[in-house]
Amino acid sequence: YKSYHLIESKKLTKKEIECFLNESEKYIKFNKEKYKKSKLLKGRSIFNLFFEDSTRTRTSFEVAAKRLGADLINVALKDSSINKGETLLDTMTTINSMNPDVLIVRHPEAGISKKISRIVKACVINAGDGSHEHPTQALLDALTIKRKFKNFDGLKIAICGDILHSRVARSNIEILSTLGSSINVIGPKSLIPKDIKYLKVNVFHDMKKGLNNCDIVMMLRIQKERIVGTHIPNEKEYFKKYGLDYKKLSYAKKKAFVMHPGPMNRGVEIDTTLADDI
Amino acid sequence: YKSYHLIESKKLTKKEIECFLNESEKYIKFNKEKYKKSKLLKGRSIFNLFFEDSTRTRTSFEVAAKRLGADLINVALKDSSINKGETLLDTMTTINSMNPDVLIVRHPEAGISKKISRIVKACVINAGDGSHEHPTQALLDALTIKRKFKNFDGLKIAICGDILHSRVARSNIEILSTLGSSINVIGPKSLIPKDIKYLKVNVFHDMKKGLNNCDIVMMLRIQKERIVGTHIPNEKEYFKKYGLDYKKLSYAKKKAFVMHPGPMNRGVEIDTTLADDI
Amino acid sequence: YKSYHLIESKKLTKKEIECFLNESEKYIKFNKEKYKKSKLLKGRSIFNLFFEDSTRTRTSFEVAAKRLGADLINVALKDSSINKGETLLDTMTTINSMNPDVLIVRHPEAGISKKISRIVKACVINAGDGSHEHPTQALLDALTIKRKFKNFDGLKIAICGDILHSRVARSNIEILSTLGSSINVIGPKSLIPKDIKYLKVNVFHDMKKGLNNCDIVMMLRIQKERIVGTHIPNEKEYFKKYGLDYKKLSYAKKKAFVMHPGPMNRGVEIDTTLADDI
Repeated sequence: YKSYHLIESKKLTKKEIECFLNESEKYIKFNKEKYKKSKLLKGRSIFNLFFEDSTRTRTSFEVAAKRLGADLINVALKDSSINKGETLLDTMTTINSMNPDVLIVRHPEAGISKKISRIVKACVINAGDGSHEHPTQALLDALTIKRKFKNFDGLKIAICGDILHSRVARSNIEILSTLGSSINVIGPKSLIPKDIKYLKVNVFHDMKKGLNNCDIVMMLRIQKERIVGTHIPNEKEYFKKYGLDYKKLSYAKKKAFVMHPGPMNRGVEIDTTLADDI
Repeated sequence: YKSYHLIESKKLTKKEIECFLNESEKYIKFNKEKYKKSKLLKGRSIFNLFFEDSTRTRTSFEVAAKRLGADLINVALKDSSINKGETLLDTMTTINSMNPDVLIVRHPEAGISKKISRIVKACVINAGDGSHEHPTQALLDALTIKRKFKNFDGLKIAICGDILHSRVARSNIEILSTLGSSINVIGPKSLIPKDIKYLKVNVFHDMKKGLNNCDIVMMLRIQKERIVGTHIPNEKEYFKKYGLDYKKLSYAKKKAFVMHPGPMNRGVEIDTTLADDI
Repeated sequence: YKSYHLIESKKLTKKEIECFLNESEKYIKFNKEKYKKSKLLKGRSIFNLFFEDSTRTRTSFEVAAKRLGADLINVALKDSSINKGETLLDTMTTINSMNPDVLIVRHPEAGISKKISRIVKACVINAGDGSHEHPTQALLDALTIKRKFKNFDGLKIAICGDILHSRVARSNIEILSTLGSSINVIGPKSLIPKDIKYLKVNVFHDMKKGLNNCDIVMMLRIQKERIVGTHIPNEKEYFKKYGLDYKKLSYAKKKAFVMHPGPMNRGVEIDTTLADDI
């Protein structure tokens, strides 16, 4: 039993990612069966350590853990006294003494999963740390793409919108470029991170140019309360320039595949009719 | 495996209700055993989808699901971001993609369970939608009555209090009248719904007349914060006219059976000594 | 199956405590194994009934219950409507009707576990009731001491700080004195309970005298929001007189063993460097 963390997409080799994707494909069928229960992780304790709320992510991990036979324990740390006036070291030492096998960590701050992995014996899975990384979301997106396109080589993928705050964007860029796809990021200057030059992407501020010849158009959520008025003037203006509608979609390849990690702001980053056009 | 929802009591036939009651009776003994674990639902995933809090109801379903061997996942949607700025369709599409087998839905709005059942593949059980329906509570009440009286035919049952806002009242009226009992509803005009004429009940505004010859007296909770000052003048006045005490109970049949779905407001809709008189 | 509660440490005989400790020792190894799942409590339903938050305690019981094979149901009663405007009797009657086997009770008020044990059929385990008792924490501390020192006879143990509000202190005093150790309590007069004379302890208001010749130094958490400004002047002053640092620790036996139930206030009741000196 070798402890092994899943914290940053950029640390994953092509072979490792492919191994995850091949393994995951088996579970697509499994999850649709009447009897969705394996003994693979029976006797193992998996903790959902959520320092911020995320019903969607927490539930996904809980369903997965239980179907694989593990004991799943939800530890909501957001408003916990264990999280107030106590150092991360002390909290994690307590958690560690309960001998979990896997910790699923969601935290509003970048880099916390890595810190935790240095304190505990358990495997740590980063389920989103601030604007940094969200590797399991990116692996899931890669799986969706693989099932649609079979290969990643030669695929041209546009990631559009708030690249600056999106851990999903960052993790997707790492994984999809490792797999051999070519990535365009598109967004206003205010939503493109300054360190973008260190990532293997082409940057565009115009949807027409950025979507040209793309196989996949991946839209990102605009966190309204966070960026309207500071990074973008208003929603209407944003939608006009960067919101995906049928017209802008026509700049991409014919039958381009549209993705969105959810939850969607219909009418902000994506047209509502297009969103339902499955 | 045929998907089948439990959303409205009024859709249930007499035969279906009897089938539920017969099946349930087996579990009374089962629930009292040391070993309370069956494999009936092993491998199935049941989600508690609660858009409003209800510790009592949520816990009941969780206990049932676990004892029947299912995986139970609590999805608290009340304060969830998944519930904010996202359409019900999008939320349910996400939930649906996790392949639940059963969704237990509690929602403050009437009709949501039905809407959800049209989006997802899972069976939907309505665990209370606004002032509309609460079929499992009514089935439970019917089971209690069956165990006490054996038959429903010829039983005269009074349902007293806030009929207007009570999903329990509405579901009980449907189920008990389908089973052949005769129903009196009693309450002030302000707490009787206008569409009462479409239900098979006799309406009374006076406890003495309404309780006359009744076998069962079912009291409803007064949601104080919601109706005192708007629908009824004050608690004291209400108790005097409609609160069940020994005197008013004497208007019903001798040894009439008193029921209350809980939680009780002692001294508002029921006298506290009477409440403890088991 | 004989119902048996664990509510007050002072009710436990020496033999009972030793039995708990011997049984617990087996599970130290069990908890470190890959396969941490027993069938001991399979088919049993254990409810975590928490009337106040405590992530640490709740999680510990949940992990234990699940590893022993039981069904564990978390019932958060803090903000529950079941807890508002309803008597404890009514709430517990509802819980009782679900046939739990064990209730783990955390409540801000002293004596509630005992009250509950008189209403329900289940075994009740007190997981902390106000400033009264926390017997499982004390049993855990005794286990830690047993593993370090083998015997309790002749051990001299200092418990330092806020004895007044600490259920951990009270439960530890009962259990450790029953096991034959000698207990010193140390703290300012304002933090020593008036009924201390009924407990088998020696009282000190000075760390130097109180720690003299002690094998174990057990520090208690200062609940800052509760006692600074009322029971103690300020944190700095408190630390100077009662906070454990290397100098004060030198008053105890050489290689004295330092314990703290957590969460720690570094720099208030314990020096931060000393806290990390494992």
